[in-house]
Amino acid sequence: MGLSTSEQAAITSGLDFWHTEGVESQGIPSVTVTDGPHGVRMQASGDDLLAGVPATCFPPAVASASTWDPDLLRRMGEALGDECRAQDVAVLLGPGVNLKRSPLGGRNFEYFSEDPILTGVLATEWVRGLQSRGVGASLKHFAVNSQETDRMRVSADVDERTLREMYLRAFHKVVTRAQPWTVMCAYNKVNGVYASEHHWLLTEVLRGEWGFEGLVVSDWGAVVDRVRAIEAGLDLTMPGPDTEGDRALVDAVESGRLDPAALRKSASLVQQMIEKAGQRPAGTYDADAHHALAREIAGRAIVLLKNDGDLLPLNDTQSVAVIGEFARTPRYQGGGSSQITPTRLDDALTAITASTTAEVNFAPGYTVEGEALLDQAVAVAAQKDVAIVFVGSLHETEGADRDSLDLPAAQLELIERVTAVNPNTVVVLSNGAVIATKPWDASVPGLVEGWLLGQAGGSAIADVLFGRVNPSGRLAETIPLKLADHPSYLDFPGEHGHVRYGEGLHVGYRGFDARGQEVAYPFGFGLSYTTFGYGAARATATASGVEIRVPVTNTGGRDGREVVQVYVSLPGSKVRRAPRELKAFASVPIAAGETAEAVLTVEREDLAYWDTRLGRWIVEGGEYLIEVGASSRDVRASTTVHVAGDPARVPLTTESSVGEWFADPRGAEVLGAAFAASAGDGPMSAMTANPEMLMMLGSLPLSRMASFPGSPLSAADLDKLVEAAN
Amino acid sequence: MGLSTSEQAAITSGLDFWHTEGVESQGIPSVTVTDGPHGVRMQASGDDLLAGVPATCFPPAVASASTWDPDLLRRMGEALGDECRAQDVAVLLGPGVNLKRSPLGGRNFEYFSEDPILTGVLATEWVRGLQSRGVGASLKHFAVNSQETDRMRVSADVDERTLREMYLRAFHKVVTRAQPWTVMCAYNKVNGVYASEHHWLLTEVLRGEWGFEGLVVSDWGAVVDRVRAIEAGLDLTMPGPDTEGDRALVDAVESGRLDPAALRKSASLVQQMIEKAGQRPAGTYDADAHHALAREIAGRAIVLLKNDGDLLPLNDTQSVAVIGEFARTPRYQGGGSSQITPTRLDDALTAITASTTAEVNFAPGYTVEGEALLDQAVAVAAQKDVAIVFVGSLHETEGADRDSLDLPAAQLELIERVTAVNPNTVVVLSNGAVIATKPWDASVPGLVEGWLLGQAGGSAIADVLFGRVNPSGRLAETIPLKLADHPSYLDFPGEHGHVRYGEGLHVGYRGFDARGQEVAYPFGFGLSYTTFGYGAARATATASGVEIRVPVTNTGGRDGREVVQVYVSLPGSKVRRAPRELKAFASVPIAAGETAEAVLTVEREDLAYWDTRLGRWIVEGGEYLIEVGASSRDVRASTTVHVAGDPARVPLTTESSVGEWFADPRGAEVLGAAFAASAGDGPMSAMTANPEMLMMLGSLPLSRMASFPGSPLSAADLDKLVEAAN
Repeated sequence: MGLSTSEQAAITSGLDFWHTEGVESQGIPSVTVTDGPHGVRMQASGDDLLAGVPATCFPPAVASASTWDPDLLRRMGEALGDECRAQDVAVLLGPGVNLKRSPLGGRNFEYFSEDPILTGVLATEWVRGLQSRGVGASLKHFAVNSQETDRMRVSADVDERTLREMYLRAFHKVVTRAQPWTVMCAYNKVNGVYASEHHWLLTEVLRGEWGFEGLVVSDWGAVVDRVRAIEAGLDLTMPGPDTEGDRALVDAVESGRLDPAALRKSASLVQQMIEKAGQRPAGTYDADAHHALAREIAGRAIVLLKNDGDLLPLNDTQSVAVIGEFARTPRYQGGGSSQITPTRLDDALTAITASTTAEVNFAPGYTVEGEALLDQAVAVAAQKDVAIVFVGSLHETEGADRDSLDLPAAQLELIERVTAVNPNTVVVLSNGAVIATKPWDASVPGLVEGWLLGQAGGSAIADVLFGRVNPSGRLAETIPLKLADHPSYLDFPGEHGHVRYGEGLHVGYRGFDARGQEVAYPFGFGLSYTTFGYGAARATATASGVEIRVPVTNTGGRDGREVVQVYVSLPGSKVRRAPRELKAFASVPIAAGETAEAVLTVEREDLAYWDTRLGRWIVEGGEYLIEVGASSRDVRASTTVHVAGDPARVPLTTESSVGEWFADPRGAEVLGAAFAASAGDGPMSAMTANPEMLMMLGSLPLSRMASFPGSPLSAADLDKLVEAAN
Repeated sequence: MGLSTSEQAAITSGLDFWHTEGVESQGIPSVTVTDGPHGVRMQASGDDLLAGVPATCFPPAVASASTWDPDLLRRMGEALGDECRAQDVAVLLGPGVNLKRSPLGGRNFEYFSEDPILTGVLATEWVRGLQSRGVGASLKHFAVNSQETDRMRVSADVDERTLREMYLRAFHKVVTRAQPWTVMCAYNKVNGVYASEHHWLLTEVLRGEWGFEGLVVSDWGAVVDRVRAIEAGLDLTMPGPDTEGDRALVDAVESGRLDPAALRKSASLVQQMIEKAGQRPAGTYDADAHHALAREIAGRAIVLLKNDGDLLPLNDTQSVAVIGEFARTPRYQGGGSSQITPTRLDDALTAITASTTAEVNFAPGYTVEGEALLDQAVAVAAQKDVAIVFVGSLHETEGADRDSLDLPAAQLELIERVTAVNPNTVVVLSNGAVIATKPWDASVPGLVEGWLLGQAGGSAIADVLFGRVNPSGRLAETIPLKLADHPSYLDFPGEHGHVRYGEGLHVGYRGFDARGQEVAYPFGFGLSYTTFGYGAARATATASGVEIRVPVTNTGGRDGREVVQVYVSLPGSKVRRAPRELKAFASVPIAAGETAEAVLTVEREDLAYWDTRLGRWIVEGGEYLIEVGASSRDVRASTTVHVAGDPARVPLTTESSVGEWFADPRGAEVLGAAFAASAGDGPMSAMTANPEMLMMLGSLPLSRMASFPGSPLSAADLDKLVEAAN
């Protein structure tokens, strides 16, 4: 027997903060859903929403994305799945795949990248890993949640092509490849409509076009109106209970305002999810193994930005000054719903001390509140062979965007003072989003981007500093010279309830490249302790896309990994495009002196642009430029490949311009004949005889031309012309 | 007896290309309307729309705007009025006050500036001058016609604040101060609706808010649907006849689909315009005097960009090489509907030759088609004391945007070759819109921006070169280092029927300033043959705005003019603003050694921003920074002034966020009391006790907070809270 209307209403809202409603009479249990994405944040008993049961704090997405390694993300997903099973969690609320539109985004540390392909590929593997354990993912926040300012109400105003190609592309990839159990709708509005009430997003696109089979859950508190939400395709409202909303749904069904099938469908999806969750076995996990995995991922996430004079890696005869409170009190995760109570916590100071037989001295340099403690730090730094200075952002959290990319003033002064007394200074950054490195990095020979690395980050940093790990992290977001250079700068975070996505497609490196702007460190950049040489690239068009092969040689003296990146462009494209777009990448381990052939596949669907006239994806035919690079601005090999285009003729209408008619072979024939047949001597004929006036005529819609006095066309001709041309 | 419905329909469309329809039975004559804006372009007999009766070709707006002198614009308007009377023209189709959003805009030469205040003040005087002669103006193109690409259909997608503060502001100023007889609607769409059918634009804003009393005429061919146009407030459709449209109007009235009052109102406005036109006396004009005025304005329009080593002015002992076909065949106006058959035409070569007793030799250097003729030019340049090289754009026209800011390659080579043999080289530019000057201007000691100067431009250039006119022109548009730097770059000209005004308020210098970008020559820049010193500025708030007084001293040896510019900002403003905005300016003649007190008035209405929440203009109270400059990047004196704000409380609602409630004094009191009264120990209380969670709560709308489990507010409380707070 099916659920009654009121049972359907009840089951489509939560029982409390972290549980779905069950229906005892039908044997439907309540299941647990809880925050991720880089750890299992189970609320401990009591009312403190932030007090969590200990769990492994893996590196947040800002770091895991810097590995550029889908396999690592899959392993992280598997480990998270095991922890969910141990905690009886049915759905883990992640991954977060929103684009980092602005470096100020308060939640950037939870998101992967400014690039949708990198985001989509990595998140797909995370979901596959998690769900392989019988635990559901919740792909979030759908969609266009790229800021915290006014996040519950702001309308992200973004044109459809940008929406499709940039802000929805990662969601599309994860949904079509990994079928996450749930998708979480965003708080914000998209083009004026709450994501929780956005029928086009939740139903037409997500289910209709992409074939999503799971349920849509609200972000916590994202639902404004239960009835409108159900109508739009939002199935499960969290948290609960929402007795008022449940009642409103029942009333709406009973009064005929809401189609009962809509509520039934949502309730059925919730039920299916609960049933699926019931199939997972209970489990345990090995906290040591997970800590080791967190350390491995963290080590692979670290990006070596600068290493003048091969100052790194350190050897164990060099005495070391460790400066900066963050070496002792690590910044390893951000604030808000993703905050984990870790199973343990490695600090860099301990890990460095354990890594060397030489003398290590520490000075905090500043307090966690930001006050400077300079003199002692300078004295310690002056006495040692090398100074490692730990600095970073004091705080990043869900709920608030940042207002600057700058390090705190006390830390800037610390760097200046330390470098003045010790030329062998390495700066290690701890930060959830981009920090400006100019101009101070000019005086620093070593610069290590340490992100927020999770609970094993301290050890991972020591692994890299002492060369146990050869760094292979790459920037998943551009570090600009200054905030005002950023493509989003003029339009972020908006005001009065709206934010205009004015840079359009030109998010992140696409915008810097389009404007030819200098940056501090480009997208895709990262150094290694070894060097790599590239051979010639070969590209072959296949039915499903383009296969690229390029030999890469480890030309240095250490084993290492190269992240081979494929950027694609179409010179002479008929639509506006960024100068180059990441379309494939591979993290390739190569032993010293060895050569590996990197094989990369560009999916045909990733070559497509969204044609707003035709309302569909189009692969434009032509000679695509394939640039294989060590970063977005370090192209090492390039080639071209011909790709056959999709049929994309735009039908000619009476509102098509004279220029469009003449640009179409059949249209040119038909219209040319009509012009010739009506050779007159009215003013319009004088215009068509004058090249300058013809230029002005080119933009004239055919219907408007017909309405001009003396036109060679009459209104009566138009339909016949259209018929003949199509 | 009033007009019949069919007579009303007939009179609201044209008789032919250049005449309104008359109604003989009612004694309503047909009157002539014809193109401007910088000359009276009466079509000569015959069908060639471009063959005009000779008329004075005054400097196009790109040049006249560079004078920054409203008096000159008024005198130009008066002279044009006299020429209209002589040609029996009732309405001259100008001025064009669209903002130059992009330097590529094909019609930029017909428009004034990238700044709306400069545009509005100058155009107001032009209209006053014209209409003082009993001839009507046609303020165009209303609105947001800032490109030629797809100009008949493209939708300019622009948010309301940007629309109001930037793209409508000049229209507003001209309408409210000068009541042009007519306003001409644009071809394009504004936010998806054809300007010709835009009720909000043509009726709500133009008539309702601004009090426009005249008639709205279509741009030629801008009407798609006569009925929708009349409904929106478009009165007169041009050209004609439009018998089909007339019939459609009659049918619509008879079938009850169109309110007869709408058609009656439009017909009545056409009739009133015709009656007003009948009152103007016939007249003649003095072609010599008008040519002299054209020369005066052109001389004042020339902008001296560079004058290293005081190479200019020339004296009559220096032998001169005149290089460049444009010295002999002047580029003095653009193509399209504004193109004038001049009464005479001065070329610079003749004028230069007449200006000196020293030897002058000429070499064309290139052909008008662009082919290089280098060797002869180099030989001539090498032999002379000074080389004057005339270069510029080959063509600018209505109907097509440009695709580059660069000079033709042949001209760039010419400059390089000439400067290599003659270090005393002056480059004179002829162009209707910005030309990139980097990097070649580094090798050129003298650079003269000569725009398109109208029929007397050749003489005016000689006037400046030889010091008969001390240059006082100032840039009304920024010259960027390169096109890709421009604020509009990523979003111009759009595609597939839409162009996103992504830079928002940051048009022109506002965008360059906001991003802190270097430019080649900033907005407001221009050199003189003398120098000016500024004293301290004083600013006084008045009921109607701010009065600024600043003493300016001519510290050089020549009489001259300084264009004193007032830029205003509000540090700490609650809304996004450009770093500085031009709000007042004055062209002040000052004899050598003398001091003049410049007195400038910032209108209070020009301090207002458009508040989208309140739907009205708001002057924000605070300490405004007043910067008095010789350009937008050459501030010479600054002061602050306190301006009292308009009341602007946004009422609190259940959708106002917790942060907004607490930011409002009364709201904070009411909500604080409610929180205190319901001290519980649910999860929400734990959240309000935690500062980090409070930050997340700040953005929560009150209604959403009430729906959370354990909330200190219940849904039932909300209305009471709102009532108490407002």
